[in-house]
Amino acid sequence: MTGPELAEIYRAYIACLNTQAWPQLGNFVHDRVVHNGRQIGLSGYREMLVGNFADIPDLRFDIRLLLSDPPHVASILSFDCRPRVEFLGLAVNGRRVAFAENVFYEFRDGKIAEVWSVIDKAAMEAQL
Amino acid sequence: MTGPELAEIYRAYIACLNTQAWPQLGNFVHDRVVHNGRQIGLSGYREMLVGNFADIPDLRFDIRLLLSDPPHVASILSFDCRPRVEFLGLAVNGRRVAFAENVFYEFRDGKIAEVWSVIDKAAMEAQL
Repeated sequence: MTGPELAEIYRAYIACLNTQAWPQLGNFVHDRVVHNGRQIGLSGYREMLVGNFADIPDLRFDIRLLLSDPPHVASILSFDCRPRVEFLGLAVNGRRVAFAENVFYEFRDGKIAEVWSVIDKAAMEAQL
Repeated sequence: MTGPELAEIYRAYIACLNTQAWPQLGNFVHDRVVHNGRQIGLSGYREMLVGNFADIPDLRFDIRLLLSDPPHVASILSFDCRPRVEFLGLAVNGRRVAFAENVFYEFRDGKIAEVWSVIDKAAMEAQL
């Protein structure tokens, strides 16, 4: 797979998240996906995302920068949202916060098999 | 510049940091470099790094994952070190902490012109 092809798949994955098209998630995420060192599998991955949207009703994933170097993708995702209560252990309580997630993905069989994600918690703290 | 060529320059930049070869830093970092939205310039960048080594004498940059998609590079840097006193506002006080930095770079004229870095502060907190 070429870099541009993999980037295209990644953009479709982000569109899947933003439309909360959960039945399609398995087209992009591997059955045995590992997230930050924990093998949560596709069902655990879906639960995590469903939980994120429950906690943050106005959640939206915006790609600010995208690198594709097969079999890896890296992106800076930017968020501007109002977590209802708590997020990352911070009592946000409906206030608006803007922050970035710097995240790396390894693809296998055309699907996301491993994710290494860091959210800019320090930036969020500075806004509260 | 090709992806492999840019990756090679990046590896040389990391070697420059690990040997604290500050007179060579300008070979890798642009005069007007922007770090997390602030234009600190080469001198400010050098000061930041010198300060990091003063605060963390056993600091070492290890590349865990490297993507090169010109003009961008993204890497996961892993650290295993003992900050002497405080780091990211946390009272580490000489304890050993392991954490990652997920960092993106934009190159211009063969040098790092912009950096978007997030350090995994939550992982560090969990160890203290």
